Amino acid sequence: MALLAGIVGYTGYSGAELLAVLERHPNVEPILLEHRDDGAAIPPIRNATHPRRIPCTPEAVRNEGLAVVFLATPPEVSMELTSFFLDAGARVIDLSGAFRLGTPQNYLTWYKAAHTQPELLAEAVYGLPEYCRERIPAARLVANPGCYPTAANLAIRPLLEAGAIDRTAGVVCDAKSGVSGAGRKPNLKNSFCEVTENFSAYSVLHHRHVPEVLRVSGLEEREFSFTAQLLPLHRGILETIYFRAVGVGSAEDLVAIYEKRYVGEPFIRLYNPGHMPDLHAVARTNFCDIGVSLDARTGRAVVVSAIDNLVKGAAGQAVQNMNLMFGFAETEALL
Amino acid sequence: MALLAGIVGYTGYSGAELLAVLERHPNVEPILLEHRDDGAAIPPIRNATHPRRIPCTPEAVRNEGLAVVFLATPPEVSMELTSFFLDAGARVIDLSGAFRLGTPQNYLTWYKAAHTQPELLAEAVYGLPEYCRERIPAARLVANPGCYPTAANLAIRPLLEAGAIDRTAGVVCDAKSGVSGAGRKPNLKNSFCEVTENFSAYSVLHHRHVPEVLRVSGLEEREFSFTAQLLPLHRGILETIYFRAVGVGSAEDLVAIYEKRYVGEPFIRLYNPGHMPDLHAVARTNFCDIGVSLDARTGRAVVVSAIDNLVKGAAGQAVQNMNLMFGFAETEALL
Amino acid sequence: MALLAGIVGYTGYSGAELLAVLERHPNVEPILLEHRDDGAAIPPIRNATHPRRIPCTPEAVRNEGLAVVFLATPPEVSMELTSFFLDAGARVIDLSGAFRLGTPQNYLTWYKAAHTQPELLAEAVYGLPEYCRERIPAARLVANPGCYPTAANLAIRPLLEAGAIDRTAGVVCDAKSGVSGAGRKPNLKNSFCEVTENFSAYSVLHHRHVPEVLRVSGLEEREFSFTAQLLPLHRGILETIYFRAVGVGSAEDLVAIYEKRYVGEPFIRLYNPGHMPDLHAVARTNFCDIGVSLDARTGRAVVVSAIDNLVKGAAGQAVQNMNLMFGFAETEALL
Amino acid sequence: MALLAGIVGYTGYSGAELLAVLERHPNVEPILLEHRDDGAAIPPIRNATHPRRIPCTPEAVRNEGLAVVFLATPPEVSMELTSFFLDAGARVIDLSGAFRLGTPQNYLTWYKAAHTQPELLAEAVYGLPEYCRERIPAARLVANPGCYPTAANLAIRPLLEAGAIDRTAGVVCDAKSGVSGAGRKPNLKNSFCEVTENFSAYSVLHHRHVPEVLRVSGLEEREFSFTAQLLPLHRGILETIYFRAVGVGSAEDLVAIYEKRYVGEPFIRLYNPGHMPDLHAVARTNFCDIGVSLDARTGRAVVVSAIDNLVKGAAGQAVQNMNLMFGFAETEALL
Repeated sequence: MALLAGIVGYTGYSGAELLAVLERHPNVEPILLEHRDDGAAIPPIRNATHPRRIPCTPEAVRNEGLAVVFLATPPEVSMELTSFFLDAGARVIDLSGAFRLGTPQNYLTWYKAAHTQPELLAEAVYGLPEYCRERIPAARLVANPGCYPTAANLAIRPLLEAGAIDRTAGVVCDAKSGVSGAGRKPNLKNSFCEVTENFSAYSVLHHRHVPEVLRVSGLEEREFSFTAQLLPLHRGILETIYFRAVGVGSAEDLVAIYEKRYVGEPFIRLYNPGHMPDLHAVARTNFCDIGVSLDARTGRAVVVSAIDNLVKGAAGQAVQNMNLMFGFAETEALL
Repeated sequence: MALLAGIVGYTGYSGAELLAVLERHPNVEPILLEHRDDGAAIPPIRNATHPRRIPCTPEAVRNEGLAVVFLATPPEVSMELTSFFLDAGARVIDLSGAFRLGTPQNYLTWYKAAHTQPELLAEAVYGLPEYCRERIPAARLVANPGCYPTAANLAIRPLLEAGAIDRTAGVVCDAKSGVSGAGRKPNLKNSFCEVTENFSAYSVLHHRHVPEVLRVSGLEEREFSFTAQLLPLHRGILETIYFRAVGVGSAEDLVAIYEKRYVGEPFIRLYNPGHMPDLHAVARTNFCDIGVSLDARTGRAVVVSAIDNLVKGAAGQAVQNMNLMFGFAETEALL
Repeated sequence: MALLAGIVGYTGYSGAELLAVLERHPNVEPILLEHRDDGAAIPPIRNATHPRRIPCTPEAVRNEGLAVVFLATPPEVSMELTSFFLDAGARVIDLSGAFRLGTPQNYLTWYKAAHTQPELLAEAVYGLPEYCRERIPAARLVANPGCYPTAANLAIRPLLEAGAIDRTAGVVCDAKSGVSGAGRKPNLKNSFCEVTENFSAYSVLHHRHVPEVLRVSGLEEREFSFTAQLLPLHRGILETIYFRAVGVGSAEDLVAIYEKRYVGEPFIRLYNPGHMPDLHAVARTNFCDIGVSLDARTGRAVVVSAIDNLVKGAAGQAVQNMNLMFGFAETEALL
Repeated sequence: MALLAGIVGYTGYSGAELLAVLERHPNVEPILLEHRDDGAAIPPIRNATHPRRIPCTPEAVRNEGLAVVFLATPPEVSMELTSFFLDAGARVIDLSGAFRLGTPQNYLTWYKAAHTQPELLAEAVYGLPEYCRERIPAARLVANPGCYPTAANLAIRPLLEAGAIDRTAGVVCDAKSGVSGAGRKPNLKNSFCEVTENFSAYSVLHHRHVPEVLRVSGLEEREFSFTAQLLPLHRGILETIYFRAVGVGSAEDLVAIYEKRYVGEPFIRLYNPGHMPDLHAVARTNFCDIGVSLDARTGRAVVVSAIDNLVKGAAGQAVQNMNLMFGFAETEALL
């Protein structure tokens, strides 16, 4: 019998991607939870079948027997809904930033609002399987990582752990994202004519994803410079990461560090020196692709990390977490 | 009587932009020099007027009395043609990299070919008016700057001169360019389906524009990390430049450094702290727009520099140089 | 002394284009009329000059001595503002559909609202210079044509007048427009992620521009099928027009009909048979480019008509009308 | 044991799509046939698995025991290779135009070259399952339909069979395709800078896909006007089809004709009146989506037909044919 998995926010880009991934999953039936006016987005095709829809209430979740609910909602909505669904017996995978930062103070600093669920915040497990795999299976509440931090942490942490980064010189992460990262709500900044043939930086040095990188990678704030930028395309994140390498003699040495750390990881792909990932390589996949370049003479190094912000950066990673929580193969519906 | 200005390579993107700029110039008549099979690109409009075309030969240049010839050609073609046109009595503005790097050795290192005109290389004046304005009026041969170096040098050099950059930590320049920067010759990498919905890095750490930045900005190679990246759009370069600031207490201090250095410069625009340029701001203009951000507590600083690669990065700057060489108002046809 | 020309709606795409065109006009000073919260869009560049701004009131218009006001506003706002500005002594060029359809009944049918200014509607002169040039100079109020009808009427009317169209078989106009035609107000349909890599039809067979084509071209409603479609690009309209030709033996005969009708017209360009205009040919110009194809054996004919929707389809044509109204050269600021 | 399916031309867009579809097929193992220098395109990922590659020779095909070979090659290559593979015991599904037009004369007229395999041309079965399903299972050689004809025939033929089209007025098909339809070979017309922000018509009235529409739909040449146009996007075809309806009183009547004809068809989706398909609806699917609009008063009708040119217009339909040929479920790997 299929596991019933609810989706709140299924009309947004992450929510729609979740639905698409779950529809490919052999062990899961996705159920749409009708929150506000989500319903209007169903296309008017006569001979199509649609997933079931139920009200977005604890009663409905309990009565239907939903095992898990995915929240593809803003953080303030996620804070409001999570405890209701936990009380109704479902586990929760939240795709917002509500439960990622560990402490209410951290949340207040970066989200400019008081956290209303500090106990759940303390309980939440950060859902980056490559680093938190052992805690995810038993979690009631998983905080699905942010898109930018996923690409950054997977690239930076192995090098930092291996001591390959000169921390005194700092790490620069120049990040570029497709427009779907900003959500589906209409906004002048995301209007076609404003974005096409354009490229722009935003939240320079103070993006709210920064603390998530610091917390997971192990970098200090003064060591890390981050700029988010908007690409004129739908999906994809590419981060160009600069640092001075220490203790490595070649690009191959850097690849070897990743190779050792990520042996057996199904969703990390490494590029041979001389090659770099681009966004086409990861589009509509749950892969994080990593390539490196090193000027051995001076130690200047560049790492390129690429993901699909809607898959490994959101819906795909959420399903990866669900697979771990419910004992399915970790790659189910994702390869 | 109008100054006659020849264009070689008028079917390329820079060449076509040159023609468009010169057609707006009240004191200049552009003349197309027919090199190879340029001619096919004239559109088949019945009631249109076209610029005059003459053969691409020294004789034609002399007979017509061309005062200046713009070379929008690959470096090896520019090396071949320049002396012919100089001998024919025309001054030359070369848009290629042939005459930018000062020494044959430098050229060999970065362009992987011997320089065939070392004397002209020595004579050539680098055409970045903001830094070389006094030498341009008398120049016979101007090496028009590269697109990436123009945006980088205009942003980096004032800060370096003012001692505002901690050179031990180095400077990172993450550069993004539209596809027209790669020229008009068909190529799989520039094909629509390969570029759209994609973003990719190339020439990581060893782009041939690097030495032009070092030479003009004053940075040492070990201090400078540069990555070029391809944006899915037609025109525009945006460079995100990272460094540790020293001796400045606020973003406003950084803007003040630029303001002092660029007082009276017609093509440099500065943004108030809190704002950053984007590519729409500079598209089809000869402006270089500069914005800054600073975390005063840690000294981490970001400068964004934006130009149109075909205008300030190529044809517009070339006409700016022509204006200086022939005593026209520097902004003629460019504002 | 410069003519003072006010712009209401200068933050919209048509309004911004108007400002750009007027800033190139040697005889005109553009003045921004502050209507609602237009002001926020001025970019934050320190060393830039901006046009003057005054309140959007009859008093301000009278006190400043504005000679003309351009309304780049929705039709209901245009209806409200026009009489105020006329009373204040300014002439008005309205870019909305408020005054194009001749009768209140026609307006009610297609705009689903009562016309509140029937006397002005009766007085308004339709501003398609190629067909109404003699009435424009004396007009107090010009109704600037719609973008789709401009491209359609310039292509269809000469053939209809020449009897070259088999009216029993009807005329099909398959129209495609860039996104700027839908205005700058944020809207899910115009969001980047909805538009990129997409193409869609809208207002099939009942677009509100249809009556403007019928009124000007001379076609009957039953003879004309029109579909509007959204292209994933910023600016440009291309219309592919199908009909059965009568009395013509070759594509050249069709071009000759246009050539005769449009002799001396500065903004109509005709293509030789075998060639068709595309959107790049007309982008940022006030041209309407026309190409034809004919299968002489069966009479099946295709005409392609292309304009820039923001220029010949809006701001450029509005300035063309202003030039006629105030005795400037018709092409001033437009070539 | 898996069916072995060879792909020639796997680096092209259709070939790469074929590989992606076949990798999802539970009963098939795709094998790459190395023709010319296909191999360079394999991405340089260290820890990735790749399909097997063998030489593109009859011997290799026979030795490996390939059951079927897909040819994603130009027609002249397909003509050359087909008999070799048939002789080697494999069945062939050809994605080119080589075997679609029935007679050598037809081929000569539209492809401007002599057909070198007239017997195979006579034997080939046209692979549009909705109309040729009964002949496909036994076919040795299937001519996979063209992309434009697939969308056109699926929309036009039911209406023509039902007598709902006034043939005296003719049918207009205004077709728009993404750039992948032109193949992966670099070409100025397909270069990013030429395509972005552009839209253009080509092969007006004489596209080589016209005879395929005539042959399958039942229209006469004089009744059918077709224009192909290039959209600035990667994948998707949308055709806007105009005609005068006879014997139908409402849009619903038109939908009912399709519904009756396509009952049980897994890949045809019908839209309720008032809605039209767009390219996002069909991207990366094997669906053909059809929507209709009718002005009942005048009989003017519009049908919009949308497919993904690389899926239902190429690779997906090819696998649909393979499924029929080898007794798999028709929708395997395609839903």
